[in-house]
Formats: sequence, C-alpha cells, structure tokens
Amino acid sequence: MPLQEIDRRRGFTFLESGPVVLVSTSDRGRYNVMTISWHMVMDFTPHIAMATGPWNHSFRTMMKTKQCVINVPTVELLETVVRIGIVSGTEVDKFARFHLTALPARDVQAPLIAECLAALECTVIDYVEKHGLVILEATRVWYNPWKKEKRVCHAIGNGRFSVDGATIDYRSLMEEKLPDGV
Amino acid sequence: MPLQEIDRRRGFTFLESGPVVLVSTSDRGRYNVMTISWHMVMDFTPHIAMATGPWNHSFRTMMKTKQCVINVPTVELLETVVRIGIVSGTEVDKFARFHLTALPARDVQAPLIAECLAALECTVIDYVEKHGLVILEATRVWYNPWKKEKRVCHAIGNGRFSVDGATIDYRSLMEEKLPDGV
Repeated sequence: MPLQEIDRRRGFTFLESGPVVLVSTSDRGRYNVMTISWHMVMDFTPHIAMATGPWNHSFRTMMKTKQCVINVPTVELLETVVRIGIVSGTEVDKFARFHLTALPARDVQAPLIAECLAALECTVIDYVEKHGLVILEATRVWYNPWKKEKRVCHAIGNGRFSVDGATIDYRSLMEEKLPDGV
Repeated sequence: MPLQEIDRRRGFTFLESGPVVLVSTSDRGRYNVMTISWHMVMDFTPHIAMATGPWNHSFRTMMKTKQCVINVPTVELLETVVRIGIVSGTEVDKFARFHLTALPARDVQAPLIAECLAALECTVIDYVEKHGLVILEATRVWYNPWKKEKRVCHAIGNGRFSVDGATIDYRSLMEEKLPDGV
C-alpha cells in the first residue's frame, strides 16, 4: 500500500498551503469524490473548515455519515482533479470514470485515494449552517513517502491553477512558533 | 497611488490559491498588521473566513472596529511577512519597523499596504466563537496593475513556504463553472 500512516501532528502541513484537494465519501459503500479549494486549517490538531452546502452531492453524504477523507493530489493529477470538479456524483461513478484507486481507511468508511500524496481521515464534528461551513477533525493522516512528485496545485478561481515552484525555508526564524511534531 | 480599485467580483481570485497574507487594522489611527495563512474563500461575493482569536492583538482590534484589510504580498516581501508574523503589535509599530507604506482605504479605517499586489477592504460580519472563525465580507478590492512580481507564497506550516511556479490554464474546461466578472 503506497500510503503509510504518519504522525497526525503533520496533517495540517498538507493543507495549510491551500492546495486543491479531493474529498472522498462513502454512502453505504458507494464511493464518491469532489474537488474543493475552499478549505482552511483552523488549528494544529488539526481541525479543518470547508465551505460547501446542500447543492453538493458529497455534502449530503458527509452530513449523513459524518465522515470523509481529504486527499491531496499533485500536479500530474490536475486535469483529473478539474474533470472531477465539473461532473456530479449523482450521474457518474467518479472512481471508475477517473481510474482512482480506493484504499481502505481505518476510522472512516470513505476511501483513501492511492494516487494522492497524502490523505487525512476526517470526522465531521459540526456544521455552521449560517455560513455553510463544515467543521472537520482529522483523526489519521496518511502519506506516500515513495512518491517523487510532491508539487501540489492551487486554484486561482478563474480557471487557472498555480503549481508549486521554489521552496523557501524560514524555519530558523520561526522555530519558536512551530508546533511539536512537524 | 499604485493600487487601483477593481471589480469586487475578482477579489476571491487573490485568496482562493491560499497565499500567506498581511491583515492590517487601525485602532483609532494606530495601524497594525499580522501575518495569516489560515483563511478561506467562502463564496464569490466574496465572503472570507479567517481562523484567529483573542490571543492575537489584531484580532481584538478587528472585533472592536469590525474592519480590516487583507493585503496580498508577493515573494520579494516574504522575509518581511515572516518577521511580521513573529512579533506582536503590542510591542512594535510594525508599519514603521518593516517600512510598509499605508495608503487610505475607502470603506474602512485600516490601511491598504502599497507594497502588496492586491488588497481587500473587509467588514467583520460575524464571529463564530465556538470555532474561532472571523467571517469577513470584502467590500472593495484594489490591485497594482504595474507590479511585475505576481508570485504569491504559500505557508506549508513547518517553517517552509512554496512560491508560485508554473500556471496551468483549464479555463476552457471550467467555463460553465466560473462566476461572472473573473
């Protein structure tokens, strides 16, 4: 299995940069997946907020099952990620259509996606209906240490995406502010 | 003035990719600025969520004044952005210390930062205390069309930052999903 479980305290580092992600769900064994850019780290536990709502098929499953997996794809998957975002799971089995490999998670029924760099098993702990915000807690974090491609993609919102370029290290400046375990 | 007001409907496109941003405030004319990565677009209006709380000096000013500006810096400012993030406005006049140029906004007392690529004037419309989420509405959006450096930076959370690399265009695939005005 390409995805290995890692320390949950590293989980937020896969989301803080704001990548476009694939959120997988399972409705009585029927898998679905949606593309989301509107998500945010809320703390180091990590808790995560996600803006979505009842117009979304995956949202209804998330509300019913209180579970999902946030999968972090890298750049070679971007066209697939975009195509997943423009069809609805009410019409299409997206795992089959897009040749995604579902792997079993531990705490949730929703699948890990084997092709992704990382995957966070999440429990829905609240829904702030007034603002359409789903509040998630990641309970387990998975990572593919063998995957060479690590560049994630960021949706700009106008149909364009930026791919990770250079990495700049300010760890020495920020040491005191960093949480344990990262 | 380098920053020009543009169509508010383009505002979310400066935040959706998840850049590290500078949030400026004004407390009876005393300017302050904080570094934030934990923010999220919630809709195209745009509404924006931000995770912060009472431990933060700027948060207290935001709650009192119900105003702030979200400024979007580019890569040449990254070291300044990191340094802004590790000192408190209770101790330091950060605009003076970091040589930031404050420009007047229109709807809010908080300043636009002239050195940034874009700036969104925001009103605090709610605070979800249970989850530490400030809910903002951007009322005016500013952009520097002359600024050549357009690469924003994304905090990874471990002291490292990724800088925008290549841009990939899927506009033709996503046309139907894009809102007007972007």
